[in-house]
Amino acid sequence: MNKINVSIVGASGYTGLELVKVLLKHPRVMIRNLAVRTDAGKPYSELFPILKGQCDQKCVDIDVEKIANASDVIFFGLPHKTSMEIIPQFLKFGKKIIDLSADYRLDTEKRYINAYGVKHLDKGNLPAFVYGLPEFNREKIRQTNTVANPGCFPTGIALALMPVLQAGLIETETILVDSKTGISGGGKTPKPAFHFPECNENVAAYKVASHQHEPEMEQELSKMAGKPVDIVFVPHLVPMTRGIYNTIYTRLTKSVTAAELHNLYRKWYQDEPFVRVLEKGQIPENKHVAGTNFCDIGMVISGQRLILMSAIDNLIKGASGQAVQNMNVMMGLDETLGLN
Amino acid sequence: MNKINVSIVGASGYTGLELVKVLLKHPRVMIRNLAVRTDAGKPYSELFPILKGQCDQKCVDIDVEKIANASDVIFFGLPHKTSMEIIPQFLKFGKKIIDLSADYRLDTEKRYINAYGVKHLDKGNLPAFVYGLPEFNREKIRQTNTVANPGCFPTGIALALMPVLQAGLIETETILVDSKTGISGGGKTPKPAFHFPECNENVAAYKVASHQHEPEMEQELSKMAGKPVDIVFVPHLVPMTRGIYNTIYTRLTKSVTAAELHNLYRKWYQDEPFVRVLEKGQIPENKHVAGTNFCDIGMVISGQRLILMSAIDNLIKGASGQAVQNMNVMMGLDETLGLN
Amino acid sequence: MNKINVSIVGASGYTGLELVKVLLKHPRVMIRNLAVRTDAGKPYSELFPILKGQCDQKCVDIDVEKIANASDVIFFGLPHKTSMEIIPQFLKFGKKIIDLSADYRLDTEKRYINAYGVKHLDKGNLPAFVYGLPEFNREKIRQTNTVANPGCFPTGIALALMPVLQAGLIETETILVDSKTGISGGGKTPKPAFHFPECNENVAAYKVASHQHEPEMEQELSKMAGKPVDIVFVPHLVPMTRGIYNTIYTRLTKSVTAAELHNLYRKWYQDEPFVRVLEKGQIPENKHVAGTNFCDIGMVISGQRLILMSAIDNLIKGASGQAVQNMNVMMGLDETLGLN
Amino acid sequence: MNKINVSIVGASGYTGLELVKVLLKHPRVMIRNLAVRTDAGKPYSELFPILKGQCDQKCVDIDVEKIANASDVIFFGLPHKTSMEIIPQFLKFGKKIIDLSADYRLDTEKRYINAYGVKHLDKGNLPAFVYGLPEFNREKIRQTNTVANPGCFPTGIALALMPVLQAGLIETETILVDSKTGISGGGKTPKPAFHFPECNENVAAYKVASHQHEPEMEQELSKMAGKPVDIVFVPHLVPMTRGIYNTIYTRLTKSVTAAELHNLYRKWYQDEPFVRVLEKGQIPENKHVAGTNFCDIGMVISGQRLILMSAIDNLIKGASGQAVQNMNVMMGLDETLGLN
Repeated sequence: MNKINVSIVGASGYTGLELVKVLLKHPRVMIRNLAVRTDAGKPYSELFPILKGQCDQKCVDIDVEKIANASDVIFFGLPHKTSMEIIPQFLKFGKKIIDLSADYRLDTEKRYINAYGVKHLDKGNLPAFVYGLPEFNREKIRQTNTVANPGCFPTGIALALMPVLQAGLIETETILVDSKTGISGGGKTPKPAFHFPECNENVAAYKVASHQHEPEMEQELSKMAGKPVDIVFVPHLVPMTRGIYNTIYTRLTKSVTAAELHNLYRKWYQDEPFVRVLEKGQIPENKHVAGTNFCDIGMVISGQRLILMSAIDNLIKGASGQAVQNMNVMMGLDETLGLN
Repeated sequence: MNKINVSIVGASGYTGLELVKVLLKHPRVMIRNLAVRTDAGKPYSELFPILKGQCDQKCVDIDVEKIANASDVIFFGLPHKTSMEIIPQFLKFGKKIIDLSADYRLDTEKRYINAYGVKHLDKGNLPAFVYGLPEFNREKIRQTNTVANPGCFPTGIALALMPVLQAGLIETETILVDSKTGISGGGKTPKPAFHFPECNENVAAYKVASHQHEPEMEQELSKMAGKPVDIVFVPHLVPMTRGIYNTIYTRLTKSVTAAELHNLYRKWYQDEPFVRVLEKGQIPENKHVAGTNFCDIGMVISGQRLILMSAIDNLIKGASGQAVQNMNVMMGLDETLGLN
Repeated sequence: MNKINVSIVGASGYTGLELVKVLLKHPRVMIRNLAVRTDAGKPYSELFPILKGQCDQKCVDIDVEKIANASDVIFFGLPHKTSMEIIPQFLKFGKKIIDLSADYRLDTEKRYINAYGVKHLDKGNLPAFVYGLPEFNREKIRQTNTVANPGCFPTGIALALMPVLQAGLIETETILVDSKTGISGGGKTPKPAFHFPECNENVAAYKVASHQHEPEMEQELSKMAGKPVDIVFVPHLVPMTRGIYNTIYTRLTKSVTAAELHNLYRKWYQDEPFVRVLEKGQIPENKHVAGTNFCDIGMVISGQRLILMSAIDNLIKGASGQAVQNMNVMMGLDETLGLN
Repeated sequence: MNKINVSIVGASGYTGLELVKVLLKHPRVMIRNLAVRTDAGKPYSELFPILKGQCDQKCVDIDVEKIANASDVIFFGLPHKTSMEIIPQFLKFGKKIIDLSADYRLDTEKRYINAYGVKHLDKGNLPAFVYGLPEFNREKIRQTNTVANPGCFPTGIALALMPVLQAGLIETETILVDSKTGISGGGKTPKPAFHFPECNENVAAYKVASHQHEPEMEQELSKMAGKPVDIVFVPHLVPMTRGIYNTIYTRLTKSVTAAELHNLYRKWYQDEPFVRVLEKGQIPENKHVAGTNFCDIGMVISGQRLILMSAIDNLIKGASGQAVQNMNVMMGLDETLGLN
């Protein structure tokens, strides 16, 4: 079988590393270019010594034409705001593009400005991008050339909420989301908040009700619900490297039993390879999804309250694993290739 | 000045160790008996080598008469359910008693059964115990001989909620509390959930909306509010040794500005030595209270929602530090002795 | 191609889990029995929820005949001292046996008693077992039915020392080994030393110069050197879940340059798929081998001293990965199947 | 009693914070100036919110004359190489000076250049500084105005070796030191090696046999031994915030029993308030010295080898606690003030 030619633009971050790890295990993929903004010429395994002997190919500069011509699929692991400077140059080549940054996730420039505080440099192309949550948009992903890979927080939160939102079982104006994230979500660049002595033995909320992923969630959850959804989102840093844990507080619109609810979720996700609905009484834990593309979902009813919990590996299902899942969908492959 | 004779019954756990550490720094205290259920005869520093040379006195058996006669104040660091077996034997001696277990925190046996699943063995004495949150019950603590030291979760949660509950500023039927606790809260006995490879690199909710501290919170918060308060409480284990972080989601009953709210809190706590109201925009972090008796409180208004955050050291303000604070109040001492 | 039928006896520990994870990825393996001493009847994914949907087959009792008849290869993940009670019952079936315990690693009963303090229950079979370090004993492993999988400490230490021992480049009576191990090396059973609050934020040496792996190292290193090797071995617990780091202090018997030494190591290991000799100036780190079957080796010469450093994942190359590597050798397969 | 006026120049790092914490508990100290190179004008508790309400005084610029005139004792918490630019300006005021940097620890410029790779800017004053290890130099410290506070690694290593070096019991040309340090030893400035996702779940040696503390150790240990001592020093980063663990491999010059050795150590340190010689069979652990000024020492004899282990809190006995201990000695105070 022919190999799919894949390149990564912006391969030097943590999502780049995880992409490469997944792609190396993918039986149908050939990695063609690992493009970086600095460090071109160095073997990739010099940036990430864990890959010594596994991926020693040299990093290259971001030569648009060369990369585009050599590739069937191009992943972009660039920072927010940089992605929208570079992606437009690639679009004309008509290759499959999967952007892991936030730049093409929001439908309108207004929302983008609201979330990121700057104008969008490529707003004309916003409508062309499909929000890459396969469990929600599989058909659209199959038919597009351009996918905006979801944020790490929105992924686990949307998967937990989708069934009850679509079934109209919860109020949409009272959803409270309390998330706990490992430190790798902050990226590879050292900063005071991610300095070991500062975040070890510490928990801290940040960007309370003002995180840039909140508009992204509200946009997508509203589509699921068919009406506006209002989220209050409070992320917390916890002292672990990987993982996101979401605890979601909702109010039921009508009385349901735990058994009915579990049935709903099990049916909803019965054919999904990467969503696991836990048994009644079971609670998700990050260690049960670490290093996997799974999203585990648990639920507890307390009176009129429905408490949903979901756990993912922020770098896999929350970023690079989901990006490869999207690639598999776009290329008509078995969706689990490279991911199990 | 005369020293206060202090004993600890049940000194072999983490709260025992923290009590001893605080009491050793207390200028008015003489530690008389460190009583244990097993290991009597061993130097205390053999149980906790950090105290070698600091506290080498020998642990003793729980000889009620001997301990009671030698002591002005007796702390009880026994497990729940054991405390109520042993404390009744001490009551007749009329010494000051501070119980760190949960056994005397609930006002009625019914609540106790509800929370702990067993009958109370000493229900006749429940009314005699004062709930030892000095910021709420200082006068009662001053006048009693028997104090039930609050639970680690209720402490930080009650301190965050008290001003708005008493001011009637929040709805009482919609309070959601998402707490994150370090592993030392689970005690010193090894269990699978606290085994390093199981809780490192992991976050997990547990006892979702069914934790035994929920009734305790509801009881005390209802007193503060002057009407029933309904709590949904979801605790989480996070991979750190010490600290509790509470994120509390409430709904305002009327519109207030952030400035007004900060004023309310600052006034409320202006004379409290161990509650720090953070400046507008500042968020509590566990590292800022680690090893201290402080409770830090922050707040963010988002529409009609008021999000309160509080951080404490679970073993100090959440247990042993607060116990010594209670002793200081009971003995008419400067409340901060040994604690700063 | 026919699948190889594989069973695990003693599948409920950490090495069992890692074995299953590796075997699930192995293209030639069919897992037939997951036998346990307790918990038979439960789905394996109930013991290890990370495998929900991946390995839900039910655990079985240790039914010797049934398991032996169904299997081409049987891994034993039982504790030391239990393994030698059970393995003899399997031997007569003539299947490939790989024991991950220490029971068949030492050549003589005398050494076993010396290391483990009890008599050996199956000493007659000790000579039949090959020490399963493929980089040292590949041919013997290929020809045997019974392999004793090396200990986690000896693996990384032997791989670091083998080239200079065989080349006669270091003194054999002065080898000091300072090792740092993650907590998972202590197994899945909760114990005080592995209780999170006890081992987090802590480093501690243990079994100083008296660890049961010291005789195992001396036995195998002496074979490599062709003369008695004397080791002083000091292991330390460090607060991480996985990984072993060895720092080995040796004395050169003659003057060599760093370049010569690197050449020796590179040549020695050039065809080895799982040993990586780092470049001059590079130092191994546990994060670079985490989750892999690699052993990374670095070296620094300081005067007459040669300092060797090696890093492995204690549960992969130090246990289950190496066991599968041994299976691949025994079955004549590509040695890397399931492991890359 | 009159208070001692104390200032800190360079108060914004981790050693500054620990100094302030210790000095706040010191009954004889008044903190006069907290001088910083940037951030002057900010309350100190804004730099370190743990001190909110405890130390809100404003940071000041480094105004030499003003600080010197206001102070009896001045601590310097500046980085290496900066300290020697600023200290000379203070010397003429004749106040007590305690430098926590490495700039005045080495006796000769040659050694300084060798260790730090730059010329010394104040070599004329090198002889005036006393190496501030009170257990070794108490009398000299008592009589000097200028103390160079020892490095964190040399402190625990020298205390472990001093008795056997002075007794001539070990060979001086074969001392191997394997140290494990928490991340706070790297300071407060974020760097890739101290980024949480990089150092969590990792162990890594660094500066193998080339660390800048090696010459400092050799200088001081040679004084203790009365002849040249040769050290091979290999430090390792381990994933904890605080603590240094030293494992020291020596060779005995004559046969001694464990009991004799323990006697030697116990006698040696019997009047030392901050050195604890553990009982035979006991092994130091970092958690037993965390947050204290203690150095715990353990020892194991294996044939001709003597293995010494010592544990300290790198920020207390390894820096700020020892600095205050030095101040107490210089000012003729009880050496333990503020430190117990």
